[in-house]
Amino acid sequence: MSPAVTLFLIVVSTALAGSVTIKTLVFPTATSTSYAEMIPQRPMNLTAFTLCMRVATELSGKREIIFFAYRTGSHDELNVWRELDGRLSFYLAGDGVLFKVPDLGALITHLCVTWDSTSGLAALFLDGKRSLSKIYRKDHTVSPGGRVILGQDADSFLGSFDEKQSFVGEICDVNMWDTVLPDSVIICMFAGKREPRGNVFDWDSAELELNGDVEVATREL
Amino acid sequence: MSPAVTLFLIVVSTALAGSVTIKTLVFPTATSTSYAEMIPQRPMNLTAFTLCMRVATELSGKREIIFFAYRTGSHDELNVWRELDGRLSFYLAGDGVLFKVPDLGALITHLCVTWDSTSGLAALFLDGKRSLSKIYRKDHTVSPGGRVILGQDADSFLGSFDEKQSFVGEICDVNMWDTVLPDSVIICMFAGKREPRGNVFDWDSAELELNGDVEVATREL
Amino acid sequence: MSPAVTLFLIVVSTALAGSVTIKTLVFPTATSTSYAEMIPQRPMNLTAFTLCMRVATELSGKREIIFFAYRTGSHDELNVWRELDGRLSFYLAGDGVLFKVPDLGALITHLCVTWDSTSGLAALFLDGKRSLSKIYRKDHTVSPGGRVILGQDADSFLGSFDEKQSFVGEICDVNMWDTVLPDSVIICMFAGKREPRGNVFDWDSAELELNGDVEVATREL
Repeated sequence: MSPAVTLFLIVVSTALAGSVTIKTLVFPTATSTSYAEMIPQRPMNLTAFTLCMRVATELSGKREIIFFAYRTGSHDELNVWRELDGRLSFYLAGDGVLFKVPDLGALITHLCVTWDSTSGLAALFLDGKRSLSKIYRKDHTVSPGGRVILGQDADSFLGSFDEKQSFVGEICDVNMWDTVLPDSVIICMFAGKREPRGNVFDWDSAELELNGDVEVATREL
Repeated sequence: MSPAVTLFLIVVSTALAGSVTIKTLVFPTATSTSYAEMIPQRPMNLTAFTLCMRVATELSGKREIIFFAYRTGSHDELNVWRELDGRLSFYLAGDGVLFKVPDLGALITHLCVTWDSTSGLAALFLDGKRSLSKIYRKDHTVSPGGRVILGQDADSFLGSFDEKQSFVGEICDVNMWDTVLPDSVIICMFAGKREPRGNVFDWDSAELELNGDVEVATREL
Repeated sequence: MSPAVTLFLIVVSTALAGSVTIKTLVFPTATSTSYAEMIPQRPMNLTAFTLCMRVATELSGKREIIFFAYRTGSHDELNVWRELDGRLSFYLAGDGVLFKVPDLGALITHLCVTWDSTSGLAALFLDGKRSLSKIYRKDHTVSPGGRVILGQDADSFLGSFDEKQSFVGEICDVNMWDTVLPDSVIICMFAGKREPRGNVFDWDSAELELNGDVEVATREL
């Protein structure tokens, strides 16, 4: 679907919609103690996914930043990172797939990553704009039974946090699906559409357990 | 208001509008003598403001760049900068508030800064895209009685210019309001809407006094 | 034409359009042997042009990248580059015109360059966003009789390729006109519109002669 057609659909489908206010998490400083745990709606044995969030961080230079960490007892099952060199990446229990993209900063960015086991196709979207595709971890399955946290990277099960990898900034609207959503759906969500709701994580209904210095605020979309 | 709804409003409200041509200022080289003075429509005692402009500059590296300077006899009352490290900032008579954003360059960027004394909330918009918010100078009031110039930073009243801080590039559509405009209004203005007109500065009617090597051209929006 | 009006035209004119699939070229590695030759539809004696393409490359740092090379026996007649310092540029048989823009990366970017002999006005568009204008090679004419290649810079007639300047990444939708298209037309094409078709190169009908390791894939617009 062309961006123009997508645009038309956005206009038609949301013309009568009103303003949307969502909760947002602010991590004001680097710590090894502050994080938010999210409880998934279903077991996370996944052979495909779309994971989206809105995020802003002014950390820069040679600094790793964790955006999303899903760890079982033995492995980092699905971690999303900003690398030391500024690339964005995700890791499925082993080496990661990296994308060279514009630096994040003070402007809120809509970030999605998609992956499908059958084809191995991995891609990333920034503000609805698609990256080139990469082949990554064909035939792999994400394992269930772990825990998902925002703000810290756990090097053991919910522990061994490293302040130098912690998230500082604002993060919200973390949603996840167990399929690869079409480009046009991702573009519409960037533009403010709230459907379809995530079936692994749905930010609007997600329970969050906050630990340490994490502030909850609200934000207009 | 969501971007999608905003988009709808843009489409509806401007469908019948025609092309818009505005004047634009080109500062071809770094000088300590070239500037444009703008005369405000009302005294600039402000407890809130939205200041917008369209700007392109290819200066980069460790170079400060002044975008807007409002100075009374004793203070820099409201200065907008590109910092040595590329961050954008503004200063209200003292330390500033800085935002890490993508580098400016040859592409024309719509830049707005907003600030409100009561909450102290400060934010910045690039091409309609909002930054995270920062708390800055709560309960402060901008003082009236100074002069506003584009192109130079005055370290004394309309003097002591420093070539190394001068603006080089193109700047236009400098508008200012004594309130914080809603996000949706700023998005619409980025997209070409010409209402509401600024009540502190209105580019379309503003008188400009040019000094030195400043060229006036026109540009389609 | 304002972006808002342009947007309206996009919506109206493409509401009934369907999805578009085009061919795309992937250059997986740096070589001094892989390239694609494009056959122009008319002799390339040009006093004006618009040249557009969609391109993604993760090459960065101090690395030249050739995007488009048109060479006659004696001259590089029209070459489009990413410079060592990240600027984008084009060269008409001599010194080039350079634009400081955001770094290219994994996200597909719609790039156009325009030039007109009469005025000498040169500009560049990234994703529909216009740069400032520069005066370049007034009264010059591009010479006919050469050959156009993607992927390599020829330092002699279709030879003397340098791996360190080769293109690595994805490139598609290379179209060229012998006039400067209006801004609004370029914005619409960025958004997926397929008219007007290029009269020097039309990607949808262009014959490509592939050499070395160049993969042809398809991509949805």
